[in-house]
Amino acid sequence: MGVVTDRRRVVRVREGARAARPDTLAVEEPLMVRLVGPGALVGRARALGAVRAGVVPVGGVLPDGVLPGAPPAGSTLTVTMRTPGDDFDLVAGWLVSEGAVTAREDIAGMRLCPDEDNTVEVALAAGVEPPRQRAFATTSACGVCGSDTVVEVRAALRWPVARDTVTVGADVIAALPDLLRERQRAFDRTGGLHAAGLFTADGEPLYVREDVGRHNAVDKVVGAALRDGALPAAGTVLQVSGRASFELVQKAARAGIPVLSAISAPSTLAVDLAEECGLTLLGFVRGDSMNVYTRADRLR
Amino acid sequence: MGVVTDRRRVVRVREGARAARPDTLAVEEPLMVRLVGPGALVGRARALGAVRAGVVPVGGVLPDGVLPGAPPAGSTLTVTMRTPGDDFDLVAGWLVSEGAVTAREDIAGMRLCPDEDNTVEVALAAGVEPPRQRAFATTSACGVCGSDTVVEVRAALRWPVARDTVTVGADVIAALPDLLRERQRAFDRTGGLHAAGLFTADGEPLYVREDVGRHNAVDKVVGAALRDGALPAAGTVLQVSGRASFELVQKAARAGIPVLSAISAPSTLAVDLAEECGLTLLGFVRGDSMNVYTRADRLR
Repeated sequence: MGVVTDRRRVVRVREGARAARPDTLAVEEPLMVRLVGPGALVGRARALGAVRAGVVPVGGVLPDGVLPGAPPAGSTLTVTMRTPGDDFDLVAGWLVSEGAVTAREDIAGMRLCPDEDNTVEVALAAGVEPPRQRAFATTSACGVCGSDTVVEVRAALRWPVARDTVTVGADVIAALPDLLRERQRAFDRTGGLHAAGLFTADGEPLYVREDVGRHNAVDKVVGAALRDGALPAAGTVLQVSGRASFELVQKAARAGIPVLSAISAPSTLAVDLAEECGLTLLGFVRGDSMNVYTRADRLR
Repeated sequence: MGVVTDRRRVVRVREGARAARPDTLAVEEPLMVRLVGPGALVGRARALGAVRAGVVPVGGVLPDGVLPGAPPAGSTLTVTMRTPGDDFDLVAGWLVSEGAVTAREDIAGMRLCPDEDNTVEVALAAGVEPPRQRAFATTSACGVCGSDTVVEVRAALRWPVARDTVTVGADVIAALPDLLRERQRAFDRTGGLHAAGLFTADGEPLYVREDVGRHNAVDKVVGAALRDGALPAAGTVLQVSGRASFELVQKAARAGIPVLSAISAPSTLAVDLAEECGLTLLGFVRGDSMNVYTRADRLR
């Protein structure tokens, strides 16, 4: 776990000449997220006493004995390709992004699977529903529309992002891409990692995470905040290294983040969702120029 | 359908000055893919005779009467965020990428849902299994490993990509990023669209498609080739505008494409899968320099 870069042989072609040499690449590995029911966890805890050190408490609460909540045991919630490291942050943030959890107490515990790499087992607290399966639903309905989707996301928000009264200086926003890059451990070596960073309105970094997938980088940041008990992340700015899609705006809104700043372009649906949620969306943040797509009143 | 860009209001900040103006953005909209069983399609075809013009034959075969095959009717196979346009290509290519279809005859028919936007109904031919649900499986197994995943994908390939004897000139590869960019209709207006292009080994463009999602752009290219009866795409080169992930290599390999060229960095698992499948993977293709990660013997 936590190997962010690795080496592979590469043939470099430069001005017609070839040279074989090692190259440093961003690591991509699958991660399986398994939902653990109380019975399964108790059984495992008994059988694997020595592994209890591998149980990572969320919010300082170590699962002990029979866990509350009875989600279906042994379900694989998702398999995602990600860069190893910060896996508990990733899982926690993914659960926030899916709308399943909003506080660290919603997660009873997480641990690395003792038998296999690349597997995180998570137990949810009593009354917390696991994320719903999104595809493969059998339904007679058809049709899906961007506007409806946007309204649905807004309606399901737990925190009133629109009423966040924070303001941010344009100079602070302008500095964030460089601050993010400075804190990326691996990018300069690989050119292959996205990054996301949560900052205060004064530009102080709170959490910076990297991943081959930009969605994962955001989930890791959100999960780190959740595990610190820092959600909703009122008054903060989320800076991302790439474009702003619908899904990134959704992730920010579900974490209670009022300002999302992207180095590159947003999509139409990202703008529409930011508008509907009352989130400030910035794009093309380069040097001292930037585009403000929604809620420009927060920019000083 | 097919609206690739749209306008939103933006506040531009330049050197401290603000100006409100319209901005052109890449459109992102959800697309629902529904699997249609024979009964449902017959019923609908009767009731919606006027809509038959909306049924798009795949490979020239119009679904007529009772369709062969009996996949579960009314299932939503997937909902994906995509840029509208080339939706039948997207659905066809997604089915190839998921390993469900390999020839145009595997798809009995596709049509736009007559009742709603953003929905494609697809009927598979007799004996063609729909894509399997990937997450939410209930299993007692845990653990997932990059190497196993790579071996599984190679084992499931229908075409021997490794034995493709094509060679490509380094000068041809070097020219592809510009050729791709020239054929992007919308990028220069939005800066927000990925592109993928399938080229002959001489650099002649076969299919170029755009999307907010780079995976979708590749699916659209692969689907266009499938619908032309052009799979496996032996002897071709796939050029993509971004990075090369595991999933992009998988999509290329499943379409029988022997060479994948990316403008930016590959991940470790992309390289490992390309190696295992015998696919030539190039990255950092910029000017006349490039990195060849696997099967450099195909580069002249």
